[in-house]
Amino acid sequence: MPEAAILMGSDSDLAVMKAAAETLEKFSVGYDLRILSAHRTPRETAAYVAKAPARGVRVFIAGAGSAAHLPGVIASFTNLPVIGVPISGTLQGLDAFLSMVQMPPGVPVAVVGVNAARNAALLAASILALKDKALARRLAADREEMRKEVLAKSRKAEKLGYRKYLEAMKK
Amino acid sequence: MPEAAILMGSDSDLAVMKAAAETLEKFSVGYDLRILSAHRTPRETAAYVAKAPARGVRVFIAGAGSAAHLPGVIASFTNLPVIGVPISGTLQGLDAFLSMVQMPPGVPVAVVGVNAARNAALLAASILALKDKALARRLAADREEMRKEVLAKSRKAEKLGYRKYLEAMKK
Amino acid sequence: MPEAAILMGSDSDLAVMKAAAETLEKFSVGYDLRILSAHRTPRETAAYVAKAPARGVRVFIAGAGSAAHLPGVIASFTNLPVIGVPISGTLQGLDAFLSMVQMPPGVPVAVVGVNAARNAALLAASILALKDKALARRLAADREEMRKEVLAKSRKAEKLGYRKYLEAMKK
Amino acid sequence: MPEAAILMGSDSDLAVMKAAAETLEKFSVGYDLRILSAHRTPRETAAYVAKAPARGVRVFIAGAGSAAHLPGVIASFTNLPVIGVPISGTLQGLDAFLSMVQMPPGVPVAVVGVNAARNAALLAASILALKDKALARRLAADREEMRKEVLAKSRKAEKLGYRKYLEAMKK
Amino acid sequence: MPEAAILMGSDSDLAVMKAAAETLEKFSVGYDLRILSAHRTPRETAAYVAKAPARGVRVFIAGAGSAAHLPGVIASFTNLPVIGVPISGTLQGLDAFLSMVQMPPGVPVAVVGVNAARNAALLAASILALKDKALARRLAADREEMRKEVLAKSRKAEKLGYRKYLEAMKK
Amino acid sequence: MPEAAILMGSDSDLAVMKAAAETLEKFSVGYDLRILSAHRTPRETAAYVAKAPARGVRVFIAGAGSAAHLPGVIASFTNLPVIGVPISGTLQGLDAFLSMVQMPPGVPVAVVGVNAARNAALLAASILALKDKALARRLAADREEMRKEVLAKSRKAEKLGYRKYLEAMKK
Amino acid sequence: MPEAAILMGSDSDLAVMKAAAETLEKFSVGYDLRILSAHRTPRETAAYVAKAPARGVRVFIAGAGSAAHLPGVIASFTNLPVIGVPISGTLQGLDAFLSMVQMPPGVPVAVVGVNAARNAALLAASILALKDKALARRLAADREEMRKEVLAKSRKAEKLGYRKYLEAMKK
Amino acid sequence: MPEAAILMGSDSDLAVMKAAAETLEKFSVGYDLRILSAHRTPRETAAYVAKAPARGVRVFIAGAGSAAHLPGVIASFTNLPVIGVPISGTLQGLDAFLSMVQMPPGVPVAVVGVNAARNAALLAASILALKDKALARRLAADREEMRKEVLAKSRKAEKLGYRKYLEAMKK
Repeated sequence: MPEAAILMGSDSDLAVMKAAAETLEKFSVGYDLRILSAHRTPRETAAYVAKAPARGVRVFIAGAGSAAHLPGVIASFTNLPVIGVPISGTLQGLDAFLSMVQMPPGVPVAVVGVNAARNAALLAASILALKDKALARRLAADREEMRKEVLAKSRKAEKLGYRKYLEAMKK
Repeated sequence: MPEAAILMGSDSDLAVMKAAAETLEKFSVGYDLRILSAHRTPRETAAYVAKAPARGVRVFIAGAGSAAHLPGVIASFTNLPVIGVPISGTLQGLDAFLSMVQMPPGVPVAVVGVNAARNAALLAASILALKDKALARRLAADREEMRKEVLAKSRKAEKLGYRKYLEAMKK
Repeated sequence: MPEAAILMGSDSDLAVMKAAAETLEKFSVGYDLRILSAHRTPRETAAYVAKAPARGVRVFIAGAGSAAHLPGVIASFTNLPVIGVPISGTLQGLDAFLSMVQMPPGVPVAVVGVNAARNAALLAASILALKDKALARRLAADREEMRKEVLAKSRKAEKLGYRKYLEAMKK
Repeated sequence: MPEAAILMGSDSDLAVMKAAAETLEKFSVGYDLRILSAHRTPRETAAYVAKAPARGVRVFIAGAGSAAHLPGVIASFTNLPVIGVPISGTLQGLDAFLSMVQMPPGVPVAVVGVNAARNAALLAASILALKDKALARRLAADREEMRKEVLAKSRKAEKLGYRKYLEAMKK
Repeated sequence: MPEAAILMGSDSDLAVMKAAAETLEKFSVGYDLRILSAHRTPRETAAYVAKAPARGVRVFIAGAGSAAHLPGVIASFTNLPVIGVPISGTLQGLDAFLSMVQMPPGVPVAVVGVNAARNAALLAASILALKDKALARRLAADREEMRKEVLAKSRKAEKLGYRKYLEAMKK
Repeated sequence: MPEAAILMGSDSDLAVMKAAAETLEKFSVGYDLRILSAHRTPRETAAYVAKAPARGVRVFIAGAGSAAHLPGVIASFTNLPVIGVPISGTLQGLDAFLSMVQMPPGVPVAVVGVNAARNAALLAASILALKDKALARRLAADREEMRKEVLAKSRKAEKLGYRKYLEAMKK
Repeated sequence: MPEAAILMGSDSDLAVMKAAAETLEKFSVGYDLRILSAHRTPRETAAYVAKAPARGVRVFIAGAGSAAHLPGVIASFTNLPVIGVPISGTLQGLDAFLSMVQMPPGVPVAVVGVNAARNAALLAASILALKDKALARRLAADREEMRKEVLAKSRKAEKLGYRKYLEAMKK
Repeated sequence: MPEAAILMGSDSDLAVMKAAAETLEKFSVGYDLRILSAHRTPRETAAYVAKAPARGVRVFIAGAGSAAHLPGVIASFTNLPVIGVPISGTLQGLDAFLSMVQMPPGVPVAVVGVNAARNAALLAASILALKDKALARRLAADREEMRKEVLAKSRKAEKLGYRKYLEAMKK
């Protein structure tokens, strides 16, 4: 049963948004993935959002570029948390950014960084983990793993020196 | 019968958007004025847009600030021309600007300047004038009047010099 | 007989502006296409705008980059609707954008997104469709077609999963 | 028992952040409110974040301006959801905005609009409502109330006309 | 006989542009001052530019805000140097700035700082001084005077200390 | 004898600034070309500026990127006109732009568009042409030539249609 | 004997820069304060910088707005550390910011926040403290004091609640 | 013994930050190089900063991109000078820039240009040179070398002309 829904306005956004799907899979979070446009399929988008809770969906992740209305449109039809991923295009994602984050009082969207689909999925997982202790443990383990990776790299750089480290990176 | 519809997301936008109403009145263009929010009343907004053509509406003017989705949401429900007026707020209207103008391929919005409600109404009138010769004449007369006003000011500045002109402006 | 005029300041803009011509052709809207510069051919630009209505032109589409004055210069010589297409260059189109949209009170330009020549043509068509029911039907059909395309893609992504969908896109 | 924690780096942020406290109170969500700086009290901030779950905290709301590191610093010490409120200052909140949202892969922050403390609290409530049906009902009622307010204003504007409506607003 | 022409699109620009007139007067440079709009009086603007050389004009100073086309329009009708003064408005003058400076190849405009009408006049004077030694001497004297003023202030601050200096400034 | 001086801070700017040299050569304006840095050779830059008038120099063209101080530094040592060419780099030339144009009252720099070395040379030529009628005639002829080129392209596009025109451009 | 030099281009910068002087006094660091302009007194600025080390100066603090060249000009004449304070004006300090920070390779300037004269002085003190243990202790005490102030405010807000705290702030 | 510490949040920053290491080596300044993240290894970062002075470290250089908190986090744990290098990414380094420079009162960071790791090292060296005369001499020699290089290039460009110079650069 899907607990999260990943929506995007166009299949050209999939190259960025796949990182959200991969991350949810890594943490064993079920998800729906749909291509639904705020402007080209407004009725179907509204209908999907209305039915999603019955399917089990508890959190939305919406990626969009340019005049990026998708997360706001979703939020206008639900009180569940909506996470927006601004996708970069002509104006480096700044247009998508501002189109998402400056929502009016009463209808929030939770925005992450430009193209940050992985972080959107982690945020969704951290929300779902509030009532799923196993998921919370998987998130904690992931954080610990990242910590160790950084430290391992630092020790390697200390040991090799930056010249050899950079050479090793190229291989 | 209203030929134009002036929509805005909040009554706090009315101080800017009244210039659109005043301008349409000046040119004897009938209009609806509604407070309808893309995010707080999405269904009623969609319903109004669907019914508007039957009321006579041929062009929409939508003012909005921040994550200014209103004109885009209107455009998602109609093929009639939609004119967007970005309203300035925390980020000087740049957020509203980009939220309106960068619409996806297939669903255009016609954007005018920040807070430029008068120009939005003039644009609407110029569109309606394509099948209304009397309106076209009123627009031409308005342009001619503006021309004369500028020239009268220039002659006055030439005659008085800038010092006396500025003094006269203060009175 | 041309109902729309597509103007641009340089033939280097043609790679972007051809989408306006293609779109007007798709909807069977006759058009003029001219290379006329606000700064290098100011008199010929003014002369073309003055004569265009007699040729049948009802709406102007003007593409320009950098200090993008062309649509504003056109608007200074006509009350017909003028649509501006900001074309990206050194500053990502932001310069062209602001040069077009912030017109003074009394002389509006209708601005669409950066490089959005297709949307400019759709906007022009939606204006002309106010007195051309057949054109209005063609626009409605196009919108319906877009809707179906998005839904077909969504079903395909749902069926295949994102991995296979992305593989299929590459082919 | 506090379910949310509202943190800010300086008591000068309280004028903005009080809206978060007011909103949580409105929805009967218990909260901690602390003045803790990412840069002036780094150890105490880390200590608070580490102990907060034992106090019942499930979600963090952090307001900060300028180089607004507070929500990121909180997120570096917890996997609970962290919501950032950029507070405007010299650069209109754009600096706070970018300092919060562009977090590195692996450590997300959920950013809302500039000075949008009320929306941050609503987002926190929508997260907590996933396991609190009564809270979910209160959120739904609030959304319904906003809807009715907008519609009431629209009817009033329709009935009075914009001139009388604006006069009535001034009183 | 006027050697410089000061043009502006609206009498609301006069509060800024008067500094250009004052500065030219200080250096005994004759000037025309006209209110002529690129968009509201395009033909009269072109006509003035065409006739100005016969009146003695050798350099143009044009102030404009928003979509600030005036200096570019002037430059499209003359090869004489054209100096543009961006005037701040909704977007802090950045729109006027970019609208002026990013002129196409072949038709330059010389842009000075936002609201920098005095500097525009100094630049015009430095151009005219190339064939007017007396004017060149007046410019050199002005520079020397500025130098002395700065040094006098520095000595005063050194002597008084910053506290007393600031107190003295308030008086 | 050089009438213009082309300065740049680094030989990496030469790829842009060569257009200034080419344009001055086209109009038979003699010029000096020097690599002199505001920050790495401040004394030699000041010395060159001080001696340049004796060599015949009447106008300076200075290209610089990033914190582009070169034209301002030149202007601090002379009352001759100084033209600045912002050169694009990490921040698209916006940094160079603002570093040049926002000069303090009393010391103007004439700024042209990003990388617009050709326009800088045309502006320099238009300044020198005030006392050189032959040069003025060459500038007028160049403007006329540009006009004809644009019109020839427009006629070609009208005749061929945009498709064949674009094909012809590729060859 | 002055160990730091505080320079600014105009006495209008003194209202911001006095915080640097106050802070150095607080830490008992001797300083020179001079009004010297990069553009209006270039020779005197260079002369001061050349002589400053002999007076005891070890670090420069330079405040400037707009095209803020002063710290860069200082850095072009010395290898001592130069700290730049961007001062806000028409463009919110962004112009001053970029004019200072994007220095060419080889000639660094250390930039602090917009109007952050206090932080500039603290940075200068931290540099001087490398060979002055008493100064290092004063800096550490100041940090500790700030820490305690924040914690005292937090306890007060916890105790009073935000409403009474805000009321107490107004008094 | 390391006198400087070069820190970065990710090994992907090493391609930029290596210039800092190379420059310190050139000036015979010992350094530590560590990969430590403000967000992924907050405790280890704090621990390193706390122990660094005992290892001999007197100045920190921290490179980071996006929400670039690393230098600020370091500064929150030390009173030693901290130099920040904003690293460009999605938003051209503007996000990293603002995240570093707009530090709160009391906790300064010294920011250099985008990707300017070499300048960061020169700034660090100029700080350390305050108590190391040999290092000061090496810095002065480097400055002199740069000066000569620029002058040699200028003479070469003067002698060869720009065409041959550009050809010679390509080889």
